[in-house]
Amino acid sequence: MATSSPASGTGGQGVARPAFRHRHLLGISQLNQYEIVDLLDRAEAMIPISRQERKILPTLSGKTQINLFFENSTRTQSSFEIAGKRLGAQVTNMSVKTSSVAKGETLIDTAATLNAMRPDVIIVRHGASGAVELLSQKVGCSVINAGDGAHEHPTQALLDALTMRQHKGRLAGLTVAICGDIANSRVARSNLLLLGAMQARTRVVAPRTLLPRGIEMLATEVFTDMRQGLEGADVVMMLRLQHERANGRMIPSVREYYHFYGLDEEKLSFAKPDAIVMHPGPMNRGVEIDPAIADGPRSVITEQVEMGVAVRMAVLDTLLADREAQP
Amino acid sequence: MATSSPASGTGGQGVARPAFRHRHLLGISQLNQYEIVDLLDRAEAMIPISRQERKILPTLSGKTQINLFFENSTRTQSSFEIAGKRLGAQVTNMSVKTSSVAKGETLIDTAATLNAMRPDVIIVRHGASGAVELLSQKVGCSVINAGDGAHEHPTQALLDALTMRQHKGRLAGLTVAICGDIANSRVARSNLLLLGAMQARTRVVAPRTLLPRGIEMLATEVFTDMRQGLEGADVVMMLRLQHERANGRMIPSVREYYHFYGLDEEKLSFAKPDAIVMHPGPMNRGVEIDPAIADGPRSVITEQVEMGVAVRMAVLDTLLADREAQP
Amino acid sequence: MATSSPASGTGGQGVARPAFRHRHLLGISQLNQYEIVDLLDRAEAMIPISRQERKILPTLSGKTQINLFFENSTRTQSSFEIAGKRLGAQVTNMSVKTSSVAKGETLIDTAATLNAMRPDVIIVRHGASGAVELLSQKVGCSVINAGDGAHEHPTQALLDALTMRQHKGRLAGLTVAICGDIANSRVARSNLLLLGAMQARTRVVAPRTLLPRGIEMLATEVFTDMRQGLEGADVVMMLRLQHERANGRMIPSVREYYHFYGLDEEKLSFAKPDAIVMHPGPMNRGVEIDPAIADGPRSVITEQVEMGVAVRMAVLDTLLADREAQP
Repeated sequence: MATSSPASGTGGQGVARPAFRHRHLLGISQLNQYEIVDLLDRAEAMIPISRQERKILPTLSGKTQINLFFENSTRTQSSFEIAGKRLGAQVTNMSVKTSSVAKGETLIDTAATLNAMRPDVIIVRHGASGAVELLSQKVGCSVINAGDGAHEHPTQALLDALTMRQHKGRLAGLTVAICGDIANSRVARSNLLLLGAMQARTRVVAPRTLLPRGIEMLATEVFTDMRQGLEGADVVMMLRLQHERANGRMIPSVREYYHFYGLDEEKLSFAKPDAIVMHPGPMNRGVEIDPAIADGPRSVITEQVEMGVAVRMAVLDTLLADREAQP
Repeated sequence: MATSSPASGTGGQGVARPAFRHRHLLGISQLNQYEIVDLLDRAEAMIPISRQERKILPTLSGKTQINLFFENSTRTQSSFEIAGKRLGAQVTNMSVKTSSVAKGETLIDTAATLNAMRPDVIIVRHGASGAVELLSQKVGCSVINAGDGAHEHPTQALLDALTMRQHKGRLAGLTVAICGDIANSRVARSNLLLLGAMQARTRVVAPRTLLPRGIEMLATEVFTDMRQGLEGADVVMMLRLQHERANGRMIPSVREYYHFYGLDEEKLSFAKPDAIVMHPGPMNRGVEIDPAIADGPRSVITEQVEMGVAVRMAVLDTLLADREAQP
Repeated sequence: MATSSPASGTGGQGVARPAFRHRHLLGISQLNQYEIVDLLDRAEAMIPISRQERKILPTLSGKTQINLFFENSTRTQSSFEIAGKRLGAQVTNMSVKTSSVAKGETLIDTAATLNAMRPDVIIVRHGASGAVELLSQKVGCSVINAGDGAHEHPTQALLDALTMRQHKGRLAGLTVAICGDIANSRVARSNLLLLGAMQARTRVVAPRTLLPRGIEMLATEVFTDMRQGLEGADVVMMLRLQHERANGRMIPSVREYYHFYGLDEEKLSFAKPDAIVMHPGPMNRGVEIDPAIADGPRSVITEQVEMGVAVRMAVLDTLLADREAQP
């Protein structure tokens, strides 16, 4: 195994990379096209390291990472924890259950308290849109948004984009259909922003009740029929039906939902023959997706999880290791 | 303090040890007599290291261990965590409360997700018999069963055997009485399998309602009377009364249970004078055991916990460090 | 960044420091004046290290720290975890939710179990006064009290004292007013013990229902009127109103409480012009303190959190690294 600094890993271009200009990663909306490509290149260079096929110098050695999760999440929290530890960071987990938020402490006081312990980065998931940005304004360290309400989930969009790029070789010009519970989905929002910036052709496909107002500003096309929406798509991204965030909105029955919007072989046949199927997980099998599709040859769902570790390593390394090098 | 590789620690035999042929440790039933002796020898060599009396090279340095516990357990989870960290592993804990299982994700999807993060070993405790083996079939890394339903708990049986061997110098020919809630006990099952393979004489002692069907296939003798069952025993192993897994079965009142099956001085007097008393913990004091016995001179209960760290270090080192050395 | 051993950091005196004579830190009541000054000097020397402005040799490398929290606490548990990790310790968290206490295991059995895993230090928070001392008698390692019932919280008192000393240059002769829910407060108790030992002038200010019997033995003066109690104070320490430990005692309404005992600009004007305002957190904003004061120029509340990491690093280093050096 070769040992090298990831700072020298420039995605194969061999050109000095300009320092990343942001201290936080709060949303895709803050990034321009060049920054997105830069992060994807860095993440691609991280893939063999994230797979432990190649070792690197622990660039975050001695750094403190706090995972502050106000909402539970197996995959996202573990992914950030493993990403940080693989770079040598000391990772401290704080879930809402063990936090003093239960005692009525405000988000701002929690931020001030954590900040006083001098972490280098805080990863935050919170149920309210904008909570992560608010917190970032009160701390001296880097903050990474791991999902805030129905707003953004930028590392998810980056890992989705990296997965697409690995399979299709590009993002520009791809037709990507994002299907299902768009209204409640920060994943959809961050993906639409990223794909839009990268000149992909985006479609959202959902029943009217699950389409948020103004969605036509973000997506190239809007469909309420799955077969029309999937017609000729390169990528079919299914979303989780968010029972838990329904908030009294009218939702079709699960059986009816599956009939009209669940991805099965017949509906998928409308997409391109080499279309890939994605899902951010956790899946409701038999609700938004046929288990045979989820486990089938076109599914790249577990690969998305794998790209997640690489993307998070790249984001941590970019925000923290780069910062060190600056004057 | 001397520093050496545990790979050179051969339990004092100075002979090259053959590589362990299993990728997982799912149950005692998968091991033959030679493999059990091998693991016990390796664990014995780990004792001074587990006690931090002797340092070793961190053979699991840079490796990722995930503790995936669907059932709570202080001692088992901490024991695995401390064992892994003492060997240099990066340990990530995932309890069911913080997992997406609460969102309805299937065990298989959880396995696929974790596997995609490229851990080196997953330690799993689950309430359903067979769940750990099912999970092991879906991942590319090693899996260690930390207890699955009423099926197996192999590291518990190994630590119990190591404790017995440390005190009695051997396992073959020992008379071991396992007493109490046999029906619900994976600890009893794994112990019976191990002791049977090692030519010990096994007895189970319990009220009929707590004896599972077919137990006479696993144990040498079956008793419903404690005094008869303990007569001449070298080892008395008490089990926890599993109130929480009773599932509506008829269970005697606690007072009645203690009267007939609780280990007190009088009943213990039927065992050999040098018999040792064991319990996997956590104890229901005054239910299955008199506190005076639990804390008395014949109790080796805390020593079992100590052997637990050594056994788990040996199992981790065997599954992971050996694997590395293979072509 | 310079790298040096903290053992050589003697708070600027350049004189060999006698070894700390205690194995545990259970309460301020066990410490004399010289030991308090010694710990504060060591903590002061840790400040740049706790801020990651200066690196040190990891004096707790290879040591095992267990955080055993029977009560939830964001700031205290994280503070101890980050302190331990910054010194190189392997930290294992055990919260009551994931512990076998839920299965009815006694505190003593939990202690024996943890002890058998050979940790170097156990940090304990427990709801019952005296529980931590009881546990310390059953283990072979160091124990640090992170709060036990209404009894003591020694590291909180040390961090409060360090904060005062950093601002006022001394403790002797300072007038410190501790205000609010004295009856339920281990923070108040530990502070009164420490400040008394250091010849500070202590005042408690609270409604009669929140004053414990015998408080006049610990405090120099007792007041039920805030304006009289704050008159000429150098330090105003507000306490959290412990709704959750009220135990049916008569508590005034929140509005009434704030009117008479909440710290606002008008009441604070009775203290010295350069008085500092402290709070152990988490705050009930608008109950015991006006948010404008909490965030104002005289508040040193987040600095207390910062001193907490330095104090806990110093305590861990003193109990563990010193011990190593002893014969």
